[in-house]
Formats: sequence, structure tokens, C-alpha cells
Amino acid sequence: MNQPVHLLGISNAIVDVLAHIEVDFLVKIRAVPGSMTLIDKQRAREIYSMMGPAMEMSGGSVANTIAGFANLGGSAAYIGRVKADQLGAIFNHDMRSLGVDIRLKPGPDGAPTARSHILISPDGQRTMQTYLGACLELSVDDITAESVGAPKAVLIEGYVWDLPEGPALTQKAVDIAATNGTTVVLSLSDSFCVERHRDSFEHAIRNGVDIVVADEDEVNALLQTESFADTLKSLHDYDNLFAITRSEKGSVIVHGDERFVQEATAVDEVIDTTGAGDAYTAGFLYGWVNDYPLAECAKIGTFCGTTVIQQVGARIEPGLLDDYPFE
Amino acid sequence: MNQPVHLLGISNAIVDVLAHIEVDFLVKIRAVPGSMTLIDKQRAREIYSMMGPAMEMSGGSVANTIAGFANLGGSAAYIGRVKADQLGAIFNHDMRSLGVDIRLKPGPDGAPTARSHILISPDGQRTMQTYLGACLELSVDDITAESVGAPKAVLIEGYVWDLPEGPALTQKAVDIAATNGTTVVLSLSDSFCVERHRDSFEHAIRNGVDIVVADEDEVNALLQTESFADTLKSLHDYDNLFAITRSEKGSVIVHGDERFVQEATAVDEVIDTTGAGDAYTAGFLYGWVNDYPLAECAKIGTFCGTTVIQQVGARIEPGLLDDYPFE
Repeated sequence: MNQPVHLLGISNAIVDVLAHIEVDFLVKIRAVPGSMTLIDKQRAREIYSMMGPAMEMSGGSVANTIAGFANLGGSAAYIGRVKADQLGAIFNHDMRSLGVDIRLKPGPDGAPTARSHILISPDGQRTMQTYLGACLELSVDDITAESVGAPKAVLIEGYVWDLPEGPALTQKAVDIAATNGTTVVLSLSDSFCVERHRDSFEHAIRNGVDIVVADEDEVNALLQTESFADTLKSLHDYDNLFAITRSEKGSVIVHGDERFVQEATAVDEVIDTTGAGDAYTAGFLYGWVNDYPLAECAKIGTFCGTTVIQQVGARIEPGLLDDYPFE
Repeated sequence: MNQPVHLLGISNAIVDVLAHIEVDFLVKIRAVPGSMTLIDKQRAREIYSMMGPAMEMSGGSVANTIAGFANLGGSAAYIGRVKADQLGAIFNHDMRSLGVDIRLKPGPDGAPTARSHILISPDGQRTMQTYLGACLELSVDDITAESVGAPKAVLIEGYVWDLPEGPALTQKAVDIAATNGTTVVLSLSDSFCVERHRDSFEHAIRNGVDIVVADEDEVNALLQTESFADTLKSLHDYDNLFAITRSEKGSVIVHGDERFVQEATAVDEVIDTTGAGDAYTAGFLYGWVNDYPLAECAKIGTFCGTTVIQQVGARIEPGLLDDYPFE
């Protein structure tokens, strides 16, 4: 029997391989600066062999949110596929060390644990070349009443739709959630991901997803709108709660006719914007599962996002809310 | 046929597993703050399972020097044992990406690639718990005329004496060096390591070692002297060249009756002293293999060490000498 938790994450379990690059490296590997590209094993080997010395650390968008949520003091569980290799052990260790309940056993065979080659340009921009490896083997059979349990909320990332059984396993998770009164949260992941799966996302959002977390570009891509004003108009047509981050413009919570704007916090210096959205989601959902009012959820999310952009690295450190001015 | 290089390193090939810890963690695992302890597999598993999320990066003292030397623009080769596992691939990748010629193939069987759990206290102090794994399998058979070649200098670390065949394989490397006119450099590694192997070090230094690089504590431990003044007196008795680092007191080069003092460079803020000695050695040997006068070697070493203490992380970044005021 799994321990009961507040939040369950279902996502791609990825180890980040970070390296600084020279400007011409992206030209050499024909990568669009700032993009996330899915690559196969052969290409992964090629890019890695061309890269300089790297630093390895656990990553993945929703995995970062789950780690952050646990570090805020929330109880969390995680479903994602790693192989029983050293990178898989690193990923599971890092999650477990934060108290996250890992629901799947690492696979003994198959593709190695996923890694994302994160190439950091001299100006701090990050270009990602992601080899999904073991993630691609996440299957419908991994999603069961037992593995999902009855969390208060389940958070699924859009990137899961890139997996062969992604749409089907998500549907199964949504169905299980419905029987338990679990809130279903979808993170739209990135605007290219939205382009790849727009119809399927639209269907899911209309059928079982309760909350959508996304940045402005992702929502615009979903609704095929040109401006945020148009986006806000289009959202009238949805029953879902949307939590939309807008960088220095803060965030907007939209729920039916309800609108709530949370201003961004001014910071002296932005060190690294990586993971700002994931941290916002962690804070927002920490408020949500603790039944705080929406305005407070957005405020905690902003507090977490603001903290993360002032540090190097994507993940929230423990004890962050020690400094949070709860009212 | 191996490519001819300026510098060959022989050392423990280690992946660092770095994590920030709370003050009481060291009490809990009964570790002496600031120490380096060798641990077995069981203990490694225990400590890792107690540690928080970590960051993995290639490390090892002399391996850091070799990486730094390559980054300065020197041609380098490396002999160290990793297993054919993911950590071994990471280690070899990082060295190769700097142009270092890896002389041994990863072992298909045996213990996994070594890792050092580096526990960073809130005050920045580092306590290391090192599992040597595959390193322990480095053997006399790995040291051959072919694998050693005829570099201008070979750098061996004191930690190699902790391996079962360490003293014997070092002797073999010294013998091969003698036939090729290769300068033999010994890094004393750390003062506890000197305590463990003093007689054997003394024997090596009297028989084949040309240059000793060490910090003040390590030389004091070797000579069993209480003060640096006594150390300088005792060194009259040695034919070797000693390059001795003394932190904020700079460094002293001693060769017979020759003495040369290189002042330390004042810095605004020390960020992380890790790897300062290894970087000094890289710079010093870069000067040495390029036939610079001793004073200039010490100056380049100081420049490298000073740079490294003003950054996070132990390794020298590429292009460092672009800023060096060669005369």
C-alpha cells in the first residue's frame, strides 16, 4: 500500500547534462538557440562527444516541480520511468532524498535513463537536446489504482504526450483521478510541445483536466491567439482554472469569469531563469492542496519563482517557505 | 601508437557527488569535518542514501590537474581506472572533451567507477567520503612502455599508494620514465595520505622522483617537522625540486640551495578553495614543460590557483591563460 500524498507527478524522468558552450557550437550541431529538441540515441552520442566537460543533475520539468513541492514541505509521489542504471539511481536518489515516494521500480532492460544535454550559451541562454530513452517506455500498465493512489492532485506534463503511450496513459490517470476526487493539473510544458499536440491537449482539457498551468506563450499556442487580450477572451469558453505566468508581468489566474492578477516581484538581478515556471507551479500547488485562497496560491507561486531566478539551478532549496510572509 | 604528450597523469579516476549538508549531518555519519575518508561499498550506499540531492561532476586531484593543464593548452594523457558504466563514461568524456588522451579502456567487470561524496557544510567546508571502486583495480599491468609512452613529465598522486598495487605500479612508471628522460612529479595529495605512506613516499622521493608538489602541511608531515622554517632546513638534504603552496603566504620553490618565493595575489573574495592546489600544479607544470624559468612557473601556478579560488568548482576553465601577462 502506497503512502497517501498531496501531490502525484507523472512525467519524464530526466538527468540534465549541463555544459557551457561557445557561440558557434549551436551552429555546428544545427540547433535553434533556446529550443528543446528531442533526439535519438545516435544523435545523443554525437552531441555528447562534441560537448565539453559537463555537470550532471536530476531534472525534468514536472520532476523539478515535484522536488520543489516536497522541499516546500508538501507530501509528494512520482511516476516516471528510469532504467536500473547509474543515471536512474541518481534520479531516484535525488527525489527520494526529498521524501518523494517513487512509485515505479527502475526497468532492468530497455533503453538507458533519459538525459537532456543542456547547452548554456555565453549569454546564459539554454538550448536543450533531449534523449528520452527509458521515458519512452512509460506505459498504460504503469498507471494503476495502486500506483496513482488517491492524491489530492495529480500533475501531468505535456511532454508526456511525446511518449508512444502518453495520451492513453494520461487518459487512464484522469479516469482514476475521477473516481477519487483527485484534481487533475496539466502543465503545458512548452509552446512547441503545444503545437505538436494541440488537439489532444484541447480534448484532455475539455475532458477531465481541472487546472492548466502554463506560460503566456503556451496558452497562446493552445488557443491560437496572437495577443494575451485575445487569450483572456477565449478563456471565457473554458470551465478550467488557468494559472498563467507572464515573466516580469507577473501571473494571471483565470477561472470562468473570475480573474486574479499577481504582480511580479522586482529583483535586483536575474541570475538564471531556468525552472522559474516549475517553481511557480510548485508554490501554486502547495497553496492549492493546503486550501489557500487562489490569490494566496499565486502569491506563493510568485515567491518561489522569484527565488529560483535569483539562484543558479532550477530546483527549490529546502526551507524556502521559512521566509514566506504567510498572512 | 599513442600520441606524444607533454604531461601524463596517473591517478584515481573519481566522479564527485556534491551535496550541501546541514551541520549535524557530519555528526550523524561520524565524519571529521574537512577530512577525506576512504569508505567501502556498503558505507558508500549508506551515506548516499542519507544525503540530499546531489550534483555529479568529474573530479579527482591529479585528474583535475590534468584537465586544467589541457585547458591551459598543454597536451596531456591520463592513466586511471574506471569501469564501463555511466559514471566511467562521464569521467572519460569529460577528460577527452578537453583533448586528454585516455590510455586505458574501461574495465567491463569489477567494481563500479569511483565516487567521492563531497559534503559541503553551510560555511563552505568540504568533507569527503570516497569510495575507490574501480580505482582499486589499477594494476602493474596497466603501466607499460606503450601506455606511459615518453611524455616530458609524468605526474603521479600520493593517493595511488592507497591502491593494492599502487607502490609497485608507481615504481614501474618511474622505471619507464627513467629510460625516456621523463621528469617524474609526485603530488603528496593530503597530509593524512602522507601519514599513511611516509616511508614509501620517502623511498620514492629518494629514488626516481624529480619534483614534489605539495602544500605546507603535506611537506611538514613528510619531514615530520613542526614549523616551515624547520622544513626548509630539512629540505637541504634532498636533491629534488619542491614546489610548496602556502595559501595566503604564496608558494616557495626549493631546489638544493636555490629558494624562490612567489607571493600570493590578493583577492577581493575567496569563493571556494577547492582545487586551488591542483590548479597551481597545472600552471606550474605548464610552465615547466614549456621550459619557462622556475620563477615564471610559480607565477603561472599562482595565477591558476588564484583564479580557481574565485570561482565555484575545482577545475580550470578553458582560455584562462588568455589573460595571463606572459613577459
